[in-house]
Amino acid sequence: MSEFRQNLVTNEWVVVAVERARRPHDFVGVKPTKTLPEHSETCPFCPGNEKETPVAVYRYPSEGNWQVRVIPNKFAALKPLESLEREQVGRYLKFGGFGYAEVVVETPKHNQTLGTISIDEAYQVMLAYKARYDILSADQRIDLVTIFRNHGERAGTSLEHPHSQIIATPLVPLRVRSQLEETQRYSANFGTCVFCDIIKEELKDGRRLVLETEHFVAFEPFASRSPFETWILPKRHQSVFGTIHLNELQDMAKIVRDVLYKIHTGLENPDYNLILQSAPTKEDDVDYYHWYIRIIPRLTTPAGFEMGTGIYITTAYPEETAEFLRKVDVPQ
Amino acid sequence: MSEFRQNLVTNEWVVVAVERARRPHDFVGVKPTKTLPEHSETCPFCPGNEKETPVAVYRYPSEGNWQVRVIPNKFAALKPLESLEREQVGRYLKFGGFGYAEVVVETPKHNQTLGTISIDEAYQVMLAYKARYDILSADQRIDLVTIFRNHGERAGTSLEHPHSQIIATPLVPLRVRSQLEETQRYSANFGTCVFCDIIKEELKDGRRLVLETEHFVAFEPFASRSPFETWILPKRHQSVFGTIHLNELQDMAKIVRDVLYKIHTGLENPDYNLILQSAPTKEDDVDYYHWYIRIIPRLTTPAGFEMGTGIYITTAYPEETAEFLRKVDVPQ
Repeated sequence: MSEFRQNLVTNEWVVVAVERARRPHDFVGVKPTKTLPEHSETCPFCPGNEKETPVAVYRYPSEGNWQVRVIPNKFAALKPLESLEREQVGRYLKFGGFGYAEVVVETPKHNQTLGTISIDEAYQVMLAYKARYDILSADQRIDLVTIFRNHGERAGTSLEHPHSQIIATPLVPLRVRSQLEETQRYSANFGTCVFCDIIKEELKDGRRLVLETEHFVAFEPFASRSPFETWILPKRHQSVFGTIHLNELQDMAKIVRDVLYKIHTGLENPDYNLILQSAPTKEDDVDYYHWYIRIIPRLTTPAGFEMGTGIYITTAYPEETAEFLRKVDVPQ
Repeated sequence: MSEFRQNLVTNEWVVVAVERARRPHDFVGVKPTKTLPEHSETCPFCPGNEKETPVAVYRYPSEGNWQVRVIPNKFAALKPLESLEREQVGRYLKFGGFGYAEVVVETPKHNQTLGTISIDEAYQVMLAYKARYDILSADQRIDLVTIFRNHGERAGTSLEHPHSQIIATPLVPLRVRSQLEETQRYSANFGTCVFCDIIKEELKDGRRLVLETEHFVAFEPFASRSPFETWILPKRHQSVFGTIHLNELQDMAKIVRDVLYKIHTGLENPDYNLILQSAPTKEDDVDYYHWYIRIIPRLTTPAGFEMGTGIYITTAYPEETAEFLRKVDVPQ
């Protein structure tokens, strides 16, 4: 027996395939663990090697040894000096690679991750996110600021030093636009924000809950695309990340650190992507969208069927993976 | 310098990032080559082990040693006996995993691939695709038949024996629906099929062409999502694969085999996904959609930015990868 489940946000269907289902503990330790040094001479993000990277656009503390540094990406795919003017190439359109691409070096320690540093240290990372979001979204040419974290080779990074990335783009991509349309339709039907409704549902049901804090809730979505997909949502309705209050930001540091700790420890350091999905910068007060964080452990490989249809086949029940994660203790 | 390029079919943008650009030959042999035996005792798809798989729904020749076998997937994610009735779970919808999931065993030889068998053998595989497409699309509960091929572990398969898969679903997924909407809008504006226009453009421009046969054209798309993405399109307008003529099918065997041969030989057996994107079964004669084949070598890893925005960053120019593939000779 298997079942189709619908993602209430995107209206996409996934298949939970139980014929090949695996228990949550089958996903533990799929990757061999490698022990890293606290400092690496050859790492461009380690203290002492700052001259190998562009000048920081943000650092904390502002003087002395830094805890967090934000730098323009040395190998930036997008740069702020390119032209936005569309050019016709035969029947096709192109324009310059305008935008911003930055790296948030999260800690001076080479062998830590956002899931293992202290909550106060994680708060400094969240403050850096917010500081850069504010600056980048103030550029009128920018339409979307995407904050994300690739952890491990299967998640698309070969750099070991703990870091996040921020990319600001001069367009709202079709995927984001399509999600906005679906949530707008939901709001027109029900008069409510679909994410606010999902929070209520998950708190009431409880089976997919992973963690709840004063201002946030973390759970495995009903229509998870892959095993251990985890969402973190702010309880207060806010369409873009930039409008978060500082007391919420501090609480966000706790829940993000704790959820990543549970994944890191419980699954023995799997590769994963973390993505902060926010509304476009100019839709900063709409009632139909709600920013949220998606964490996607790279434990399975999307193949031709997923690429062709967008229907993901997952081999674990979110109710079971949530139970597994709830049981992993976190340090204070 | 990098640039945004627009996919004329989906209206999605990709970034060609030249700062980190690599030359086509940098992608050769990224995976260690493994020598396989022509027959494996433990392989469920090898001759002699037929009883380890469900009974064939198609085989050629019908008697004696088979060349091609189509069997229901033993670990099917979808099955034809599930219920289509929607069920409400809290605020969410679910229904049974209804559908068909089949495996096309392409040749009895364990160590071949669709790119290395003869054109006549490849034609038998295309005939099997067509036979099953016809049967599955005749089921009125089915809305889409997806034929695809996962080659290698990075493409999501651990089975070595050459095979394709067919999955028939009782819904048109949002991703396919969204592509239909975009192409319909193009057709409303220009009065033509966007794919037919792309064929004209690629034949005229020539820089991205890989191969042309009597009935097909293969090229690297202007807005390639990743290095060596290759499209194969039938020249005659047809919205679903099922309406192909047999002389075209024979020509399709040649171009698919030859393109895969070029990729297999030129890049030293990279992992890849091949997807036949067809219109929904009931939209079998629409003027705005045109079925086509996408081949996506898994040479790079989509990460958080791609997952969050749908904007793919590629590190190779399709004009250069096409030139590379044009130079790889194919056997007659």
